[in-house]
Amino acid sequence: MATELKNENLDWQELVAQKRNECQQKIPQEWIVPTEFLNVTPHPLEYDIPRRCGLLSDLELDITENYSATQLLAKLAVGDVSSLDVTTAFCKRAAVAQQLISCLTETCFPQALERARFLDEYLKREKKPIGPLHGLPVSLKDSFCIKGLQATVGYVSFLRNEPETQESALVTMLLQLGAVLYVKTNIPQTMMTGDSENNIFGRTLNPHNTSLTAGGSSGGEGALVGFRGSILGVGTDIAGSIRIPALCCGVYGFKPTTRRIPFGGQVSGASEGLPGLVPAAGPLGHSIEDLQLFMKTIIKDGQAWEYDHTAFGAPWVDDSHSTNARNGSLNIGILPEDKQFPLHPPVKRALDSAIKRLARAGHRIIQLDNQNESLSVAYASRLAFQCFVYAPSGDHIAASGEPLVKSVARWDSPMFTGPFPIDQELGPFEKIQKLHEARQRVSDSWRQVWVDQQLDVILAPGSQSTAVAHDTYGWPPYTVIWNLLDYPACVIPFEKSSKELDPEEMKTGDDVQPDYTPTEVDGAPCSIQVIAPYFRDEACLRAADIIDKAIRGNTRS
Amino acid sequence: MATELKNENLDWQELVAQKRNECQQKIPQEWIVPTEFLNVTPHPLEYDIPRRCGLLSDLELDITENYSATQLLAKLAVGDVSSLDVTTAFCKRAAVAQQLISCLTETCFPQALERARFLDEYLKREKKPIGPLHGLPVSLKDSFCIKGLQATVGYVSFLRNEPETQESALVTMLLQLGAVLYVKTNIPQTMMTGDSENNIFGRTLNPHNTSLTAGGSSGGEGALVGFRGSILGVGTDIAGSIRIPALCCGVYGFKPTTRRIPFGGQVSGASEGLPGLVPAAGPLGHSIEDLQLFMKTIIKDGQAWEYDHTAFGAPWVDDSHSTNARNGSLNIGILPEDKQFPLHPPVKRALDSAIKRLARAGHRIIQLDNQNESLSVAYASRLAFQCFVYAPSGDHIAASGEPLVKSVARWDSPMFTGPFPIDQELGPFEKIQKLHEARQRVSDSWRQVWVDQQLDVILAPGSQSTAVAHDTYGWPPYTVIWNLLDYPACVIPFEKSSKELDPEEMKTGDDVQPDYTPTEVDGAPCSIQVIAPYFRDEACLRAADIIDKAIRGNTRS
Repeated sequence: MATELKNENLDWQELVAQKRNECQQKIPQEWIVPTEFLNVTPHPLEYDIPRRCGLLSDLELDITENYSATQLLAKLAVGDVSSLDVTTAFCKRAAVAQQLISCLTETCFPQALERARFLDEYLKREKKPIGPLHGLPVSLKDSFCIKGLQATVGYVSFLRNEPETQESALVTMLLQLGAVLYVKTNIPQTMMTGDSENNIFGRTLNPHNTSLTAGGSSGGEGALVGFRGSILGVGTDIAGSIRIPALCCGVYGFKPTTRRIPFGGQVSGASEGLPGLVPAAGPLGHSIEDLQLFMKTIIKDGQAWEYDHTAFGAPWVDDSHSTNARNGSLNIGILPEDKQFPLHPPVKRALDSAIKRLARAGHRIIQLDNQNESLSVAYASRLAFQCFVYAPSGDHIAASGEPLVKSVARWDSPMFTGPFPIDQELGPFEKIQKLHEARQRVSDSWRQVWVDQQLDVILAPGSQSTAVAHDTYGWPPYTVIWNLLDYPACVIPFEKSSKELDPEEMKTGDDVQPDYTPTEVDGAPCSIQVIAPYFRDEACLRAADIIDKAIRGNTRS
Repeated sequence: MATELKNENLDWQELVAQKRNECQQKIPQEWIVPTEFLNVTPHPLEYDIPRRCGLLSDLELDITENYSATQLLAKLAVGDVSSLDVTTAFCKRAAVAQQLISCLTETCFPQALERARFLDEYLKREKKPIGPLHGLPVSLKDSFCIKGLQATVGYVSFLRNEPETQESALVTMLLQLGAVLYVKTNIPQTMMTGDSENNIFGRTLNPHNTSLTAGGSSGGEGALVGFRGSILGVGTDIAGSIRIPALCCGVYGFKPTTRRIPFGGQVSGASEGLPGLVPAAGPLGHSIEDLQLFMKTIIKDGQAWEYDHTAFGAPWVDDSHSTNARNGSLNIGILPEDKQFPLHPPVKRALDSAIKRLARAGHRIIQLDNQNESLSVAYASRLAFQCFVYAPSGDHIAASGEPLVKSVARWDSPMFTGPFPIDQELGPFEKIQKLHEARQRVSDSWRQVWVDQQLDVILAPGSQSTAVAHDTYGWPPYTVIWNLLDYPACVIPFEKSSKELDPEEMKTGDDVQPDYTPTEVDGAPCSIQVIAPYFRDEACLRAADIIDKAIRGNTRS
């Protein structure tokens, strides 16, 4: 957004060194984690070190570990807990997370604490909360703009930009709704890989096992939420960038239909005018209830459009399509495994286990088939890939002289599964037209399945694998297909990898997708994905809630 | 849709002669209007000849003249009137209309009457209507596909196609909801002018004054509804194609936000994959209540997506955004007249009269300004025009050797008001990107106006002029701007042109837009246009209803 250049005389390493030093200085001395805790075995990290390092008080541990966002908001709204206490707790825990798993980019702890004090005084004076998110800290992917902070999205060349003077539309909304903003979170160089590494902020590690990827592109967000350094975070997703970190880090993540959450005013470095896949902003959190809270608070009666002309002025309708949910019993279509993207054994086991429990809970399970090319995950992957690469794009990496990070250098593609759907040599207009027609065919085929099978939702893996070793995540076939269709999709953490239960290695044999190595991923979170048709975000989350409760054996909602 | 060619040996004139003969033969002998009524003075035509020609019974005149669609449906649902009577009445009146004002393309009277009989029997047997549109005749623009009928959209080359074997998504829905389909209606060659003339079906005349245009591109629809040969019709609109016929023919017309009404499975001859303005399907009728009936019956709980993957799976929410409507009192922004597109005196008078009555009824009137280029009607017109012409397109006219009709040959453009917003010489990808950015700026500027002024709706003219002499309608600046923004917009007929009240001629002086000639347009309907933001179709029609009642002095709803 800012266009002036600063530090034009510095080379890229000097720019980075300066930025890292600035970031380091912004962590208060009393929040510095003692060195003895920094060299730890790779897992489990999640709850252990925040407690053992002694930086967080019992209250701060309680606040960050024992409540949902919905519960904290209820307490904040009546003054049962102060925003200052909640904000301090999450700032501290985020600072600890940063030192252990490098999940942050920008921080504004003093401003956050000052805002928390203001909100506490407001509540005391006015006897009512300032808005539905009163006092709640919310973390944001680095691409969102907060006034006074940079938004470099990991491009060294963007370090020459001044701090932002304009806010993203969602930032304005969150502040007006009462939220406290305190950190922005790490992403991959280009935001187009499943490994959140860049030359400015380094590599984000998985909070469950630091030798595994945290996923990407909202990897800092997934890791921070997984570490419980955030109670509610916002990412963006064009191929899986909310859902991949969620499933890698064992948290809930929801990719809404595009344009339901205001996306405007972010920094991405990408051109947005050419037809293709469109990114959506959405929440990561600790429960379906918190994801719903985020969606309905932002969308409400269509107010989002008033902040962002690209957002739908359509209301959040909790009970839409409830006619389809027969007394809470769902018609659940099961996405078949694509033989070109075989599932790792723990992923398959978690999915099968969920299906069994759902059938036992009285839901109707419908095995879908994928004989039609238009329904195949591999074809959708190639079509999505072609949408990403059919046109020339800018290069913000070369602008600074920084090197490619490893996951960008090896940029994984699904093209080992077949040819480009459309002739890459066609003229621009014809290629756009043919890509459009191919996407329409896929979209119409899925509609037909939905109608023929009377589906409420589809249940699918979120990925071939769990979190895997750094820079091996590969192409994301099981998430990107829903971006191609622009269907809302929710990742639910469920069960864990286990070298005892799944002791056999599995080789994919394609040099692109990760192999399964039981010892390497032992204990990594598994997950499932729940998908609904275009614009049925309400139905998607309602079904996800029913499914989440059923697979955990809770009473049905 | 059908691809086989027939009659390859015939030249274009022979193809047309054959088709015209077929169409003529499909009008039953007993519905042929006596010749004495065919050579009439140009106006007023509307109610006079259907009554005087003696073809319609008193019951048929009553059915076609004295009820809204909503009222007829209430009677049909309980058997107070039979579908056969209603269908017969509208078939006859449509046949009369066709002979006087050439508003039809395809007819299927025998099939319609057979379906009406089936529906009557169904009601008798089942003691309930088959669906919410039980027994109601609905007319459709020629671009919609009905099985067994051609969909040539006025291209002679398409006469070589077989009758359609697939239905448009909306056709399937209408039939499932209980409607009776009986006619399709005329359009201009290319569907891109305001004069519904083509070499197959000739020129549609205005039912109020046959020397004036019926508008386009859904001109047959506007004329047929204006003639009360249809109680509810469906058109499509990419630059004003629903609203222009509505305002020319003195009926109500609603252009929804795109994708709210299923658009899929129509014949257009245009490519749809390139970024640009997108057409919307929507209703023409005799009251706001009937437009609402159509919208909520089709959209309901988002079922439209199940018929057409391009339609939103979002429900119709009657009471959305009602918070903005302060006890029925609206904040109404008045679009300023664009000096490059000055309003004809009767248009201005009708608008001023409406504004006065609305102020008197307690609504807040806010004069908007258009100093910012992004808010100007002329700039929006040029941007829309460039979106229409930036890329190459096919030519279905040359394919048959037919000549251009006059309004296509002179294709009016707004480029007399200034330069192309984007350099036409840019490469394809860059041009698409720049067009996108320019549109985003316009869209964001309007959002800002809306928020700053706390608008509920904008009130605007629907056109510079009323219906004018054939082939002089010109470029449609006051409708196309809302297509550029994809805002829902409703035309409300209000007052009439009068050579007594507005005796002075007005010259536009630009060789593109029509002059005002008091005697020529005397008695032509005037109208106003009500606009709401993207996706707020419910709010648009609710406000239109309040405004419609206020300007007529009815009790407020």
